[in-house]
Amino acid sequence: MARRPGPTRRVQVLEIAGSKTLRHEDRLATEEPLEMRVDAPGMPVERFGITMRTPGRDFELTAGLLFAEGVYAARDDVRSIAYCTDADLSEDEEFNVVTLHLNTTPATGWRARDVSSACGVCGKESVSDVAVAARPIRSDVRADPALIASLPDRLRAEQQVFATTGGLHAAGLFDTGGKALVVREDVGRHNAVDKAIGHCVLEQIDVAAAILCVSGRVAYEIVQKAAVAGIPLIAAVGAPSSLAVDVAKEVGIGVIGFVRDGRMVVYSHPERIAHADVSTR
Amino acid sequence: MARRPGPTRRVQVLEIAGSKTLRHEDRLATEEPLEMRVDAPGMPVERFGITMRTPGRDFELTAGLLFAEGVYAARDDVRSIAYCTDADLSEDEEFNVVTLHLNTTPATGWRARDVSSACGVCGKESVSDVAVAARPIRSDVRADPALIASLPDRLRAEQQVFATTGGLHAAGLFDTGGKALVVREDVGRHNAVDKAIGHCVLEQIDVAAAILCVSGRVAYEIVQKAAVAGIPLIAAVGAPSSLAVDVAKEVGIGVIGFVRDGRMVVYSHPERIAHADVSTR
Repeated sequence: MARRPGPTRRVQVLEIAGSKTLRHEDRLATEEPLEMRVDAPGMPVERFGITMRTPGRDFELTAGLLFAEGVYAARDDVRSIAYCTDADLSEDEEFNVVTLHLNTTPATGWRARDVSSACGVCGKESVSDVAVAARPIRSDVRADPALIASLPDRLRAEQQVFATTGGLHAAGLFDTGGKALVVREDVGRHNAVDKAIGHCVLEQIDVAAAILCVSGRVAYEIVQKAAVAGIPLIAAVGAPSSLAVDVAKEVGIGVIGFVRDGRMVVYSHPERIAHADVSTR
Repeated sequence: MARRPGPTRRVQVLEIAGSKTLRHEDRLATEEPLEMRVDAPGMPVERFGITMRTPGRDFELTAGLLFAEGVYAARDDVRSIAYCTDADLSEDEEFNVVTLHLNTTPATGWRARDVSSACGVCGKESVSDVAVAARPIRSDVRADPALIASLPDRLRAEQQVFATTGGLHAAGLFDTGGKALVVREDVGRHNAVDKAIGHCVLEQIDVAAAILCVSGRVAYEIVQKAAVAGIPLIAAVGAPSSLAVDVAKEVGIGVIGFVRDGRMVVYSHPERIAHADVSTR
Protein backbone atom coordinates (compact mmCIF):
# COMPACT_ATOMS: atom_id res chain seq x y z
CA MET A 1 0.00 0.00 0.00
CA ALA A 2 1.12 3.46 -0.79
CA ARG A 3 1.83 5.79 2.05
CA ARG A 4 -0.93 8.37 2.22
CA PRO A 5 0.65 11.68 3.12
CA GLY A 6 -0.69 13.36 6.25
CA PRO A 7 -1.14 17.09 6.89
CA THR A 8 1.87 17.23 9.19
CA ARG A 9 5.18 15.42 9.49
CA ARG A 10 7.49 14.91 12.44
CA VAL A 11 11.03 16.20 12.25
CA GLN A 12 13.95 16.53 14.62
CA VAL A 13 14.96 20.15 15.18
CA LEU A 14 17.33 22.26 17.24
CA GLU A 15 15.82 25.12 19.15
CA ILE A 16 18.22 27.92 20.03
CA ALA A 17 17.32 30.51 22.66
CA GLY A 18 20.23 32.69 23.72
CA SER A 19 23.05 30.34 24.66
CA LYS A 20 20.74 27.37 25.14
CA THR A 21 20.36 24.71 22.49
CA LEU A 22 17.66 22.10 22.78
CA ARG A 23 17.08 19.14 20.53
CA HIS A 24 13.45 18.08 20.21
CA GLU A 25 10.75 16.85 17.90
CA ASP A 26 8.68 19.30 15.91
CA ARG A 27 5.88 19.08 13.38
CA LEU A 28 5.94 20.62 9.95
CA ALA A 29 3.01 21.32 7.68
CA THR A 30 3.30 18.85 4.82
CA GLU A 31 3.80 20.36 1.37
CA GLU A 32 3.57 18.07 -1.63
CA PRO A 33 2.64 18.53 -5.27
CA LEU A 34 -0.85 17.62 -6.42
CA GLU A 35 -1.35 16.95 -10.09
CA MET A 36 -4.88 17.59 -11.33
CA ARG A 37 -6.28 15.86 -14.40
CA VAL A 38 -9.54 16.47 -16.21
CA ASP A 39 -11.53 13.67 -17.83
CA ALA A 40 -14.45 14.95 -19.91
CA PRO A 41 -16.61 13.41 -22.64
CA GLY A 42 -15.11 13.59 -26.10
CA MET A 43 -11.57 14.47 -25.11
CA PRO A 44 -8.56 12.56 -23.83
CA VAL A 45 -7.73 12.86 -20.14
CA GLU A 46 -5.81 16.11 -19.85
CA ARG A 47 -3.32 17.19 -17.25
CA PHE A 48 -4.52 20.53 -15.92
CA GLY A 49 -1.54 21.45 -13.82
CA ILE A 50 0.23 20.99 -10.52
CA THR A 51 -0.22 22.88 -7.30
CA MET A 52 1.90 22.55 -4.19
CA ARG A 53 -0.46 21.80 -1.36
CA THR A 54 -0.91 20.31 2.09
CA PRO A 55 -2.35 16.80 1.57
CA GLY A 56 -5.90 16.30 2.75
CA ARG A 57 -9.19 17.38 1.19
CA ASP A 58 -7.55 16.83 -2.18
CA PHE A 59 -10.88 16.25 -3.92
CA GLU A 60 -12.23 19.54 -2.55
CA LEU A 61 -9.06 21.31 -3.63
CA THR A 62 -9.34 19.91 -7.14
CA ALA A 63 -13.06 20.70 -7.31
CA GLY A 64 -12.54 24.24 -6.00
CA LEU A 65 -9.55 25.13 -8.13
CA LEU A 66 -11.08 23.83 -11.36
CA PHE A 67 -14.36 25.58 -10.52
CA ALA A 68 -12.51 28.88 -10.04
CA GLU A 69 -10.71 28.35 -13.34
CA GLY A 70 -14.00 27.84 -15.14
CA VAL A 71 -13.39 24.21 -16.12
CA TYR A 72 -16.92 23.39 -14.96
CA ALA A 73 -19.79 25.50 -13.71
CA ALA A 74 -21.98 23.46 -11.36
CA ARG A 75 -22.09 20.43 -9.11
CA ASP A 76 -24.08 18.50 -11.69
CA ASP A 77 -21.16 18.72 -14.11
CA VAL A 78 -19.05 16.55 -11.79
CA ARG A 79 -19.38 12.80 -12.31
CA SER A 80 -16.70 11.79 -9.82
CA ILE A 81 -13.32 12.68 -8.38
CA ALA A 82 -10.69 10.04 -7.72
CA TYR A 83 -7.04 9.44 -7.00
CA CYS A 84 -5.33 8.22 -10.12
CA THR A 85 -4.66 4.55 -10.43
CA ASP A 86 -2.25 4.60 -13.37
CA ALA A 87 0.07 1.64 -13.22
CA ASP A 88 2.98 3.89 -14.10
CA LEU A 89 2.65 5.98 -10.95
CA SER A 90 5.05 5.15 -8.18
CA GLU A 91 3.62 4.41 -4.74
CA ASP A 92 4.58 7.83 -3.51
CA GLU A 93 2.77 9.49 -6.36
CA GLU A 94 -0.46 7.56 -5.95
CA PHE A 95 -2.08 10.08 -3.63
CA ASN A 96 -0.63 13.07 -5.45
CA VAL A 97 -2.60 12.72 -8.68
CA VAL A 98 -6.34 13.44 -8.76
CA THR A 99 -8.68 13.16 -11.73
CA LEU A 100 -11.90 15.16 -12.01
CA HIS A 101 -14.38 13.23 -14.15
CA LEU A 102 -16.91 15.52 -15.78
CA ASN A 103 -20.33 14.90 -17.36
CA THR A 104 -19.84 17.92 -19.58
CA THR A 105 -17.20 19.16 -21.94
CA PRO A 106 -15.31 22.13 -20.49
CA ALA A 107 -16.18 25.54 -21.86
CA THR A 108 -14.37 26.46 -25.03
CA GLY A 109 -11.10 28.20 -24.46
CA TRP A 110 -10.21 25.98 -21.59
CA ARG A 111 -6.76 24.48 -21.66
CA ALA A 112 -4.11 23.35 -19.23
CA ARG A 113 -3.47 26.29 -16.95
CA ASP A 114 -0.25 28.21 -17.31
CA VAL A 115 0.92 31.26 -15.46
CA SER A 116 -0.50 33.47 -18.18
CA SER A 117 -4.00 32.15 -17.98
CA ALA A 118 -3.96 32.40 -14.21
CA CYS A 119 -4.24 36.09 -14.90
CA GLY A 120 -5.02 36.24 -18.56
CA VAL A 121 -4.30 39.79 -19.48
CA CYS A 122 -2.12 42.73 -18.66
CA GLY A 123 -2.87 45.78 -16.60
CA LYS A 124 -6.27 47.35 -16.52
CA GLU A 125 -7.94 44.77 -18.73
CA SER A 126 -7.54 42.02 -16.17
CA VAL A 127 -9.97 43.80 -13.90
CA SER A 128 -12.77 44.04 -16.44
CA ASP A 129 -12.00 40.51 -17.58
CA VAL A 130 -12.71 39.13 -14.15
CA ALA A 131 -15.85 41.23 -13.94
CA VAL A 132 -17.01 39.59 -17.13
CA ALA A 133 -16.00 36.07 -16.14
CA ALA A 134 -17.90 36.34 -12.88
CA ARG A 135 -21.49 37.48 -12.72
CA PRO A 136 -21.83 40.72 -10.76
CA ILE A 137 -22.82 39.83 -7.22
CA ARG A 138 -26.23 41.13 -6.26
CA SER A 139 -26.76 40.60 -2.56
CA ASP A 140 -28.62 42.32 0.24
CA VAL A 141 -26.31 40.88 2.88
CA ARG A 142 -25.63 43.34 5.69
CA ALA A 143 -23.20 41.76 8.13
CA ASP A 144 -22.89 42.90 11.72
CA PRO A 145 -19.44 44.49 12.35
CA ALA A 146 -19.22 42.75 15.74
CA LEU A 147 -19.71 39.43 13.99
CA ILE A 148 -17.06 40.26 11.40
CA ALA A 149 -14.71 41.17 14.25
CA SER A 150 -15.23 37.73 15.78
CA LEU A 151 -14.49 35.73 12.63
CA PRO A 152 -10.68 35.43 12.92
CA ASP A 153 -11.08 33.88 16.38
CA ARG A 154 -13.75 31.52 15.08
CA LEU A 155 -11.48 30.62 12.18
CA ARG A 156 -8.58 29.91 14.50
CA ALA A 157 -10.80 27.82 16.77
CA GLU A 158 -11.66 25.58 13.83
CA GLN A 159 -8.09 25.23 12.60
CA GLN A 160 -6.82 21.80 13.40
CA VAL A 161 -3.30 21.76 12.07
CA PHE A 162 -2.11 25.31 12.74
CA ALA A 163 -1.77 24.78 16.45
CA THR A 164 0.76 22.02 15.90
CA THR A 165 2.77 23.60 13.09
CA GLY A 166 2.10 27.33 12.97
CA GLY A 167 2.64 26.98 9.28
CA LEU A 168 -0.76 26.99 7.63
CA HIS A 169 -3.08 29.49 6.07
CA ALA A 170 -6.77 29.09 6.84
CA ALA A 171 -9.90 30.00 4.93
CA GLY A 172 -13.42 29.62 6.24
CA LEU A 173 -16.91 30.31 5.03
CA PHE A 174 -19.32 31.56 7.68
CA ASP A 175 -22.99 32.42 7.58
CA THR A 176 -24.14 35.84 8.78
CA GLY A 177 -24.95 34.31 12.16
CA GLY A 178 -21.29 33.37 12.57
CA LYS A 179 -21.73 29.63 12.05
CA ALA A 180 -18.83 28.02 10.21
CA LEU A 181 -19.98 26.37 6.99
CA VAL A 182 -16.48 25.05 6.35
CA VAL A 183 -12.91 25.81 7.45
CA ARG A 184 -9.90 24.51 5.55
CA GLU A 185 -6.13 24.84 5.92
CA ASP A 186 -3.18 24.69 3.56
CA VAL A 187 0.40 25.88 3.16
CA GLY A 188 -0.93 27.78 0.16
CA ARG A 189 -3.31 30.63 0.88
CA HIS A 190 -5.17 30.10 -2.40
CA ASN A 191 -5.41 26.36 -1.79
CA ALA A 192 -7.18 26.91 1.53
CA VAL A 193 -9.76 29.03 -0.30
CA ASP A 194 -10.09 26.45 -3.08
CA LYS A 195 -10.71 23.69 -0.54
CA ALA A 196 -13.37 25.71 1.28
CA ILE A 197 -15.17 26.69 -1.91
CA GLY A 198 -14.71 23.21 -3.39
CA HIS A 199 -16.40 21.74 -0.32
CA CYS A 200 -19.38 24.03 -0.78
CA VAL A 201 -19.62 23.24 -4.49
CA LEU A 202 -19.51 19.48 -3.91
CA GLU A 203 -21.93 19.59 -0.96
CA GLN A 204 -24.14 22.16 -2.69
CA ILE A 205 -23.91 24.57 0.24
CA ASP A 206 -25.30 27.99 -0.65
CA VAL A 207 -22.66 30.73 -0.30
CA ALA A 208 -24.74 33.62 -1.68
CA ALA A 209 -24.91 35.13 1.82
CA ALA A 210 -21.63 33.77 3.17
CA ILE A 211 -18.55 35.56 4.46
CA LEU A 212 -15.13 34.29 3.40
CA CYS A 213 -12.63 34.76 6.23
CA VAL A 214 -8.91 34.32 5.54
CA SER A 215 -6.02 34.24 7.98
CA GLY A 216 -3.67 36.32 5.85
CA ARG A 217 -3.71 38.95 3.16
CA VAL A 218 -6.12 39.34 0.27
CA ALA A 219 -4.47 39.33 -3.13
CA TYR A 220 -6.20 39.39 -6.49
CA GLU A 221 -6.59 35.62 -6.74
CA ILE A 222 -8.65 35.37 -3.54
CA VAL A 223 -11.17 37.93 -4.80
CA GLN A 224 -11.28 36.24 -8.18
CA LYS A 225 -12.14 32.89 -6.59
CA ALA A 226 -14.79 34.47 -4.36
CA ALA A 227 -16.26 36.27 -7.37
CA VAL A 228 -16.66 33.08 -9.38
CA ALA A 229 -18.31 31.40 -6.39
CA GLY A 230 -20.64 34.38 -5.80
CA ILE A 231 -19.47 35.17 -2.25
CA PRO A 232 -20.45 38.74 -1.27
CA LEU A 233 -18.01 39.45 1.60
CA ILE A 234 -14.35 38.81 2.39
CA ALA A 235 -12.92 39.45 5.86
CA ALA A 236 -9.17 39.20 6.30
CA VAL A 237 -6.72 39.47 9.15
CA GLY A 238 -4.21 41.08 6.79
CA ALA A 239 -4.22 43.78 4.14
CA PRO A 240 -5.72 43.62 0.66
CA SER A 241 -3.82 44.54 -2.48
CA SER A 242 -4.84 47.31 -4.85
CA LEU A 243 -6.02 44.90 -7.53
CA ALA A 244 -7.99 42.85 -5.01
CA VAL A 245 -9.92 46.00 -4.07
CA ASP A 246 -10.35 47.07 -7.71
CA VAL A 247 -11.85 43.72 -8.67
CA ALA A 248 -13.98 43.55 -5.52
CA LYS A 249 -15.46 46.99 -6.24
CA GLU A 250 -16.25 45.97 -9.77
CA VAL A 251 -17.89 42.62 -9.06
CA GLY A 252 -19.68 43.69 -5.89
CA ILE A 253 -17.68 42.09 -3.08
CA GLY A 254 -17.20 43.83 0.25
CA VAL A 255 -13.53 43.56 1.31
CA ILE A 256 -12.69 44.13 4.96
CA GLY A 257 -9.04 44.03 6.00
CA PHE A 258 -7.06 44.21 9.24
CA VAL A 259 -9.83 42.50 11.20
CA ARG A 260 -8.12 42.38 14.56
CA ASP A 261 -8.47 43.72 18.08
CA GLY A 262 -12.07 44.73 17.52
CA ARG A 263 -11.16 46.98 14.59
CA MET A 264 -11.49 46.56 10.82
CA VAL A 265 -11.01 48.55 7.65
CA VAL A 266 -13.63 48.43 4.90
CA TYR A 267 -12.16 48.81 1.42
CA SER A 268 -15.16 48.20 -0.80
CA HIS A 269 -18.94 48.02 -0.72
CA PRO A 270 -19.55 49.32 2.82
CA GLU A 271 -23.26 48.76 2.23
CA ARG A 272 -22.55 45.07 2.94
CA ILE A 273 -21.75 46.04 6.56
CA ALA A 274 -24.59 47.09 8.85
CA HIS A 275 -24.35 50.77 9.78
CA ALA A 276 -20.95 51.18 8.16
CA ASP A 277 -22.32 53.42 5.46
CA VAL A 278 -24.43 55.57 7.75
CA SER A 279 -21.91 58.17 8.81
CA THR A 280 -20.55 58.71 5.33
CA ARG A 281 -21.85 59.78 1.98
CA MET B 1 3.04 59.36 -21.26
CA ALA B 2 1.90 56.18 -19.68
CA ARG B 3 1.25 56.21 -15.99
CA ARG B 4 4.04 54.34 -14.25
CA PRO B 5 2.47 52.35 -11.42
CA GLY B 6 3.88 53.05 -7.98
CA PRO B 7 4.35 50.57 -5.12
CA THR B 8 1.36 51.94 -3.22
CA ARG B 9 -1.94 53.54 -4.09
CA ARG B 10 -4.23 55.82 -2.09
CA VAL B 11 -7.78 54.70 -1.39
CA GLN B 12 -10.67 55.95 0.68
CA VAL B 13 -11.67 53.53 3.43
CA LEU B 14 -13.98 53.20 6.38
CA GLU B 15 -12.44 52.20 9.66
CA ILE B 16 -14.81 50.60 12.15
CA ALA B 17 -13.90 50.27 15.82
CA GLY B 18 -16.79 49.26 18.04
CA SER B 19 -19.61 51.69 17.30
CA LYS B 20 -17.32 54.29 15.76
CA THR B 21 -16.98 54.64 12.00
CA LEU B 22 -14.28 56.83 10.55
CA ARG B 23 -13.72 57.71 6.92
CA HIS B 24 -10.10 58.32 5.97
CA GLU B 25 -7.43 57.77 3.38
CA ASP B 26 -5.37 54.61 3.38
CA ARG B 27 -2.58 53.18 1.26
CA LEU B 28 -2.67 49.81 -0.42
CA ALA B 29 0.23 47.83 -1.77
CA THR B 30 -0.10 47.90 -5.53
CA GLU B 31 -0.64 44.56 -7.25
CA GLU B 32 -0.47 44.42 -11.04
CA PRO B 33 0.41 41.75 -13.57
CA LEU B 34 3.90 41.70 -15.06
CA GLU B 35 4.36 39.89 -18.33
CA MET B 36 7.87 38.60 -18.93
CA ARG B 37 9.24 37.97 -22.40
CA VAL B 38 12.48 36.35 -23.47
CA ASP B 39 14.45 37.47 -26.51
CA ALA B 40 17.33 35.15 -27.33
CA PRO B 41 19.45 34.61 -30.43
CA GLY B 42 17.93 32.28 -32.99
CA MET B 43 14.40 32.26 -31.64
CA PRO B 44 11.39 34.54 -31.83
CA VAL B 45 10.61 36.66 -28.77
CA GLU B 46 8.68 34.35 -26.45
CA ARG B 47 6.24 35.17 -23.75
CA PHE B 48 7.46 33.43 -20.60
CA GLY B 49 4.50 34.08 -18.36
CA ILE B 50 2.79 36.54 -16.11
CA THR B 51 3.29 37.09 -12.41
CA MET B 52 1.19 39.31 -10.17
CA ARG B 53 3.59 41.68 -8.48
CA THR B 54 4.08 45.03 -6.78
CA PRO B 55 5.50 47.40 -9.41
CA GLY B 56 9.07 48.52 -8.86
CA ARG B 57 12.33 46.70 -9.43
CA ASP B 58 10.66 44.97 -12.36
CA PHE B 59 13.96 44.31 -14.11
CA GLU B 60 15.34 42.64 -10.98
CA LEU B 61 12.16 40.60 -10.66
CA THR B 62 12.41 39.44 -14.26
CA ALA B 63 16.12 38.72 -13.93
CA GLY B 64 15.62 36.83 -10.67
CA LEU B 65 12.63 34.79 -11.72
CA LEU B 66 14.11 33.73 -15.06
CA PHE B 67 17.40 32.91 -13.33
CA ALA B 68 15.58 30.68 -10.84
CA GLU B 69 13.73 29.00 -13.72
CA GLY B 70 16.99 28.22 -15.47
CA VAL B 71 16.37 30.42 -18.52
CA TYR B 72 19.91 31.76 -18.18
CA ALA B 73 22.81 30.91 -15.92
CA ALA B 74 25.02 33.97 -15.41
CA ARG B 75 25.15 37.76 -15.60
CA ASP B 76 27.09 37.59 -18.85
CA ASP B 77 24.14 35.90 -20.54
CA VAL B 78 22.05 39.06 -20.09
CA ARG B 79 22.38 41.64 -22.87
CA SER B 80 19.72 44.02 -21.56
CA ILE B 81 16.34 44.23 -19.85
CA ALA B 82 13.72 46.72 -20.97
CA TYR B 83 10.06 47.62 -20.77
CA CYS B 84 8.31 46.58 -23.92
CA THR B 85 7.62 49.27 -26.50
CA ASP B 86 5.20 47.37 -28.73
CA ALA B 87 2.85 49.78 -30.45
CA ASP B 88 -0.05 47.46 -29.66
CA LEU B 89 0.32 47.86 -25.91
CA SER B 90 -2.08 50.25 -24.26
CA GLU B 91 -0.62 53.00 -22.09
CA ASP B 92 -1.54 51.15 -18.95
CA GLU B 93 0.26 48.06 -20.14
CA GLU B 94 3.48 49.81 -21.08
CA PHE B 95 5.14 49.32 -17.71
CA ASN B 96 3.67 45.85 -17.20
CA VAL B 97 5.62 44.05 -19.93
CA VAL B 98 9.36 43.42 -19.58
CA THR B 99 11.66 41.74 -22.08
CA LEU B 100 14.87 40.01 -21.08
CA HIS B 101 17.33 40.15 -23.96
CA LEU B 102 19.85 37.31 -23.80
CA ASN B 103 23.24 36.80 -25.44
CA THR B 104 22.75 33.05 -25.25
CA THR B 105 20.10 30.60 -26.26
CA PRO B 106 18.23 29.24 -23.24
CA ALA B 107 19.10 25.74 -22.14
CA THR B 108 17.27 23.00 -23.98
CA GLY B 109 14.05 22.05 -22.36
CA TRP B 110 13.11 25.59 -21.56
CA ARG B 111 9.67 26.69 -22.56
CA ALA B 112 7.05 29.12 -21.38
CA ARG B 113 6.40 28.34 -17.77
CA ASP B 114 3.20 26.65 -16.80
CA VAL B 115 2.07 25.47 -13.41
CA SER B 116 3.47 22.04 -14.14
CA SER B 117 7.00 23.17 -14.79
CA ALA B 118 6.98 25.36 -11.71
CA CYS B 119 7.26 22.07 -9.91
CA GLY B 120 8.05 19.64 -12.68
CA VAL B 121 7.24 16.30 -11.21
CA CYS B 122 5.08 14.56 -8.71
CA GLY B 123 5.83 13.48 -5.19
CA LYS B 124 9.22 12.29 -4.17
CA GLU B 125 10.89 12.88 -7.50
CA SER B 126 10.50 16.64 -7.27
CA VAL B 127 12.98 16.68 -4.42
CA SER B 128 15.71 14.88 -6.28
CA ASP B 129 14.94 16.92 -9.38
CA VAL B 130 15.70 20.14 -7.57
CA ALA B 131 18.82 18.62 -6.15
CA VAL B 132 19.96 17.90 -9.68
CA ALA B 133 18.95 21.29 -11.08
CA ALA B 134 20.89 23.12 -8.39
CA ARG B 135 24.49 22.30 -7.60
CA PRO B 136 24.89 21.04 -4.03
CA ILE B 137 25.94 23.97 -1.87
CA ARG B 138 29.35 23.55 -0.35
CA SER B 139 29.94 26.29 2.18
CA ASP B 140 31.83 26.73 5.41
CA VAL B 141 29.55 29.53 6.57
CA ARG B 142 28.93 29.42 10.31
CA ALA B 143 26.53 32.18 11.24
CA ASP B 144 26.26 33.58 14.74
CA PRO B 145 22.84 32.75 16.27
CA ALA B 146 22.63 36.25 17.79
CA LEU B 147 23.10 37.70 14.35
CA ILE B 148 20.42 35.44 12.89
CA ALA B 149 18.10 36.55 15.68
CA SER B 150 18.63 40.18 14.69
CA LEU B 151 17.84 39.74 11.00
CA PRO B 152 14.04 40.16 11.08
CA ASP B 153 14.47 43.55 12.76
CA ARG B 154 17.12 44.53 10.24
CA LEU B 155 14.83 43.42 7.44
CA ARG B 156 11.94 45.44 8.81
CA ALA B 157 14.16 48.49 9.22
CA GLU B 158 14.99 48.36 5.52
CA GLN B 159 11.40 47.87 4.40
CA GLN B 160 10.12 51.04 2.85
CA VAL B 161 6.58 50.24 1.82
CA PHE B 162 5.42 47.93 4.58
CA ALA B 163 5.10 50.69 7.13
CA THR B 164 2.56 52.48 4.97
CA THR B 165 0.54 49.49 3.81
CA GLY B 166 1.20 46.53 6.11
CA GLY B 167 0.65 44.45 3.03
CA LEU B 168 4.02 43.39 1.74
CA HIS B 169 6.34 40.46 2.09
CA ALA B 170 10.03 41.23 2.40
CA ALA B 171 13.15 39.30 1.46
CA GLY B 172 16.68 40.41 2.19
CA LEU B 173 20.16 39.09 1.66
CA PHE B 174 22.61 39.79 4.47
CA ASP B 175 26.27 39.05 4.91
CA THR B 176 27.45 37.17 7.99
CA GLY B 177 28.29 40.49 9.62
CA GLY B 178 24.63 41.50 9.39
CA LYS B 179 25.05 44.05 6.61
CA ALA B 180 22.12 44.15 4.20
CA LEU B 181 23.24 43.38 0.64
CA VAL B 182 19.72 44.01 -0.65
CA VAL B 183 16.16 44.12 0.73
CA ARG B 184 13.13 43.94 -1.53
CA GLU B 185 9.35 43.94 -1.01
CA ASP B 186 6.38 42.57 -2.91
CA VAL B 187 2.81 41.42 -2.42
CA GLY B 188 4.13 38.02 -3.55
CA ARG B 189 6.51 36.27 -1.21
CA HIS B 190 8.33 34.60 -4.08
CA ASN B 191 8.57 37.88 -6.00
CA ALA B 192 10.38 39.55 -3.11
CA VAL B 193 12.95 36.74 -3.21
CA ASP B 194 13.23 36.96 -7.00
CA LYS B 195 13.86 40.72 -6.79
CA ALA B 196 16.55 40.30 -4.12
CA ILE B 197 18.33 37.51 -5.99
CA GLY B 198 17.83 39.26 -9.33
CA HIS B 199 19.55 42.34 -7.91
CA CYS B 200 22.54 40.24 -6.85
CA VAL B 201 22.72 38.50 -10.22
CA LEU B 202 22.62 41.78 -12.15
CA GLU B 203 25.06 43.56 -9.82
CA GLN B 204 27.27 40.48 -9.56
CA ILE B 205 27.07 40.46 -5.77
CA ASP B 206 28.46 37.25 -4.31
CA VAL B 207 25.84 35.38 -2.26
CA ALA B 208 27.90 32.25 -1.53
CA ALA B 209 28.15 33.30 2.13
CA ALA B 210 24.87 35.23 2.35
CA ILE B 211 21.82 34.67 4.52
CA LEU B 212 18.38 34.99 2.93
CA CYS B 213 15.93 36.43 5.46
CA VAL B 214 12.19 36.34 4.67
CA SER B 215 9.32 37.95 6.56
CA GLY B 216 6.95 35.01 6.24
CA ARG B 217 6.98 31.29 5.81
CA VAL B 218 9.35 29.12 3.82
CA ALA B 219 7.66 27.00 1.18
CA TYR B 220 9.36 24.83 -1.40
CA GLU B 221 9.74 27.58 -3.97
CA ILE B 222 11.83 29.80 -1.68
CA VAL B 223 14.33 27.00 -1.06
CA GLN B 224 14.39 26.16 -4.76
CA LYS B 225 15.28 29.77 -5.64
CA ALA B 226 17.96 29.94 -2.94
CA ALA B 227 19.38 26.64 -4.16
CA VAL B 228 19.75 27.83 -7.74
CA ALA B 229 21.44 31.01 -6.49
CA GLY B 230 23.78 29.08 -4.19
CA ILE B 231 22.65 30.72 -0.94
CA PRO B 232 23.66 28.56 2.07
CA LEU B 233 21.26 29.85 4.78
CA ILE B 234 17.60 30.86 5.03
CA ALA B 235 16.23 32.58 8.15
CA ALA B 236 12.46 33.07 8.35
CA VAL B 237 10.05 34.67 10.76
CA GLY B 238 7.52 31.93 9.98
CA ALA B 239 7.52 28.17 9.63
CA PRO B 240 8.98 26.08 6.83
CA SER B 241 7.04 23.39 5.00
CA SER B 242 8.04 19.74 4.92
CA LEU B 243 9.16 19.90 1.30
CA ALA B 244 11.15 23.08 1.93
CA VAL B 245 13.12 21.22 4.62
CA ASP B 246 13.50 18.09 2.48
CA VAL B 247 14.98 20.07 -0.39
CA ALA B 248 17.15 22.18 1.91
CA LYS B 249 18.64 19.06 3.50
CA GLU B 250 19.38 17.60 0.11
CA VAL B 251 21.02 20.65 -1.46
CA GLY B 252 22.86 21.83 1.66
CA ILE B 253 20.87 24.84 2.84
CA GLY B 254 20.43 25.60 6.52
CA VAL B 255 16.80 26.50 7.20
CA ILE B 256 16.00 28.38 10.40
CA GLY B 257 12.35 29.12 11.18
CA PHE B 258 10.42 31.03 13.83
CA VAL B 259 13.20 33.60 14.23
CA ARG B 260 11.53 35.84 16.77
CA ASP B 261 11.92 37.04 20.34
CA GLY B 262 15.52 35.87 20.50
CA ARG B 263 14.58 32.29 19.66
CA MET B 264 14.87 30.21 16.51
CA VAL B 265 14.37 26.66 15.31
CA VAL B 266 16.96 25.00 13.08
CA TYR B 267 15.45 22.51 10.63
CA SER B 268 18.42 21.57 8.49
CA HIS B 269 22.20 21.76 8.38
CA PRO B 270 22.85 22.99 11.93
CA GLU B 271 26.56 23.03 11.07
CA ARG B 272 25.83 26.34 9.32
CA ILE B 273 25.08 27.90 12.74
CA ALA B 274 27.93 28.49 15.14
CA HIS B 275 27.72 26.20 18.20
CA ALA B 276 24.31 24.83 17.21
CA ASP B 277 25.73 21.42 16.47
CA VAL B 278 27.86 21.17 19.60
CA SER B 279 25.33 19.70 21.98
CA THR B 280 24.01 17.18 19.50
CA ARG B 281 25.33 14.52 17.27
